[in-house]
Amino acid sequence: MHIGLVGLGKMGGNMRTRMRNAGLSVVGFDRNPDLADAASLADMVAALPSDSPRVVWVMVPAGAPTIETIAALADLLGEGDLVIDGGNSRYTDDAVNAAMLAERGIGFVDCGTSGGVWGLKNGYALMVGGSDADVAKAQPAFDALRPEGEFGFVHAGKKPGAGHFAKMVHNGIEYAMMQAYAEGWELLEKVDLVDNVAEVFGSWRGGTVIRSWLLDLLVAALEEDEHLDGLRGYAEDSGEGRWTVEAAIENAVPMHVIAASLFARFSSRQDDSPAMKAIAAMRNQFGGHAVKTSAPPGGDA
Amino acid sequence: MHIGLVGLGKMGGNMRTRMRNAGLSVVGFDRNPDLADAASLADMVAALPSDSPRVVWVMVPAGAPTIETIAALADLLGEGDLVIDGGNSRYTDDAVNAAMLAERGIGFVDCGTSGGVWGLKNGYALMVGGSDADVAKAQPAFDALRPEGEFGFVHAGKKPGAGHFAKMVHNGIEYAMMQAYAEGWELLEKVDLVDNVAEVFGSWRGGTVIRSWLLDLLVAALEEDEHLDGLRGYAEDSGEGRWTVEAAIENAVPMHVIAASLFARFSSRQDDSPAMKAIAAMRNQFGGHAVKTSAPPGGDA
Repeated sequence: MHIGLVGLGKMGGNMRTRMRNAGLSVVGFDRNPDLADAASLADMVAALPSDSPRVVWVMVPAGAPTIETIAALADLLGEGDLVIDGGNSRYTDDAVNAAMLAERGIGFVDCGTSGGVWGLKNGYALMVGGSDADVAKAQPAFDALRPEGEFGFVHAGKKPGAGHFAKMVHNGIEYAMMQAYAEGWELLEKVDLVDNVAEVFGSWRGGTVIRSWLLDLLVAALEEDEHLDGLRGYAEDSGEGRWTVEAAIENAVPMHVIAASLFARFSSRQDDSPAMKAIAAMRNQFGGHAVKTSAPPGGDA
Repeated sequence: MHIGLVGLGKMGGNMRTRMRNAGLSVVGFDRNPDLADAASLADMVAALPSDSPRVVWVMVPAGAPTIETIAALADLLGEGDLVIDGGNSRYTDDAVNAAMLAERGIGFVDCGTSGGVWGLKNGYALMVGGSDADVAKAQPAFDALRPEGEFGFVHAGKKPGAGHFAKMVHNGIEYAMMQAYAEGWELLEKVDLVDNVAEVFGSWRGGTVIRSWLLDLLVAALEEDEHLDGLRGYAEDSGEGRWTVEAAIENAVPMHVIAASLFARFSSRQDDSPAMKAIAAMRNQFGGHAVKTSAPPGGDA
């Protein structure tokens, strides 16, 4: 199979390697010429044989970069060709992109891709959305990228967005699982009862229902820095957690722990808490409770 | 090694089998004579050779049954002997039991035991608390029960309660992880985008950071009943979740998702929500919003 691949960053670059290792012929394009096989998007498309449907995998940041790339491909591809969005697009973008491509007879598959830096070696878990015919066209690429074994690939639904929606929920679940381990770790570290918390976490890797790949990764981090002294308690979020909670709100689905884990990250990014200032102000008003005042400018108190 | 085992229910019975399979000589006592090897607790202790420290594993329900069993053993055992509490005792019980036994020179090890019905085949994850000397006395039993491989056993701390505390936190983490999968599943089922939610969950067993034994168990349940139509949304709790949140409160540790997952279970057990009645009443007072009245007695509305 021949495939075009747009975006050769951390994810895309490794995916090019994994597809080539599986025998696929990959032409990669990236805005960074040091990474690219083709000088332009048009050159990349021109390098694909025209006697069979041309397939292009888009692996660029979600939002404008993906939307613009797909719009450019719409002008370069034609009837029967296929675009795969393998990035982290919001599922609501997929229907728009699919409709725009469909006007030109170009197929579309959205693919939620999980695996991070481990994907090159272990394979990428793929969740795809699209028609049976479009998914079939891309199947050799999916088979090259997915992990060995029976798991790690699913055709989640025929509507555009089904793959990214499944991946988004996967990430929402991941947020709450991370928070669960993190809260347990904080309690074990705080109470003077367990002598070696990192060892306890390590032991859970066998025989327990909470053993998981996330647990393995946390144990690896604790082996490097037992009390995580080198880190600040600050966590970014990259969109999928927010979208999961927004989808829950839109569909009136109760989402206690996934929402709480997202909000805990927001709290972690505040230097001071406006809400807790308001709490302190009210406690002071009704009970004369002591408050902590802001540090003086330049002060360290 | 010779060992006495008190409590031959679902867990204890399988543990007797696993220890015997490993070559240990086990004398079991249970109030149910059909299960027991010895006619009484005293007979069980008498059947243990007196030329080496006698070791008794207690595997009965937490609270009064465990406390009473250990008190009875205190009268039957002596200097240098050892009691292991392998049940789900609250960690705060352990210091009391250990001190009571220590007055007679009897050692004590608390052991959080995980593995459920799978333990007989796969082994039990064990988290133990106690002195090095006491743990060493019990080590052959731990080695028989733990899973094969490097994981699944930890000497969590030297103070009594360290093992049960680690197991309690393990279960608290489990509560929030279960709730995370459950919320993701509900959202995927609710939104008309993913055609086969069970297949999506199944695919996550490979290549994703959220793959876990819990996920495997949920997938097994979905294979039997794809939309869980046969179940009511009702979940009990067995203590460890509450104790984890209580420990978090006592130690002022923020615990957003573990607390939320416990409270979600409480909600699930209410036929109607008093709090939501109060919300409805207030909405009606200030805005004249419509309310739903209670069904008339015997009615079905």
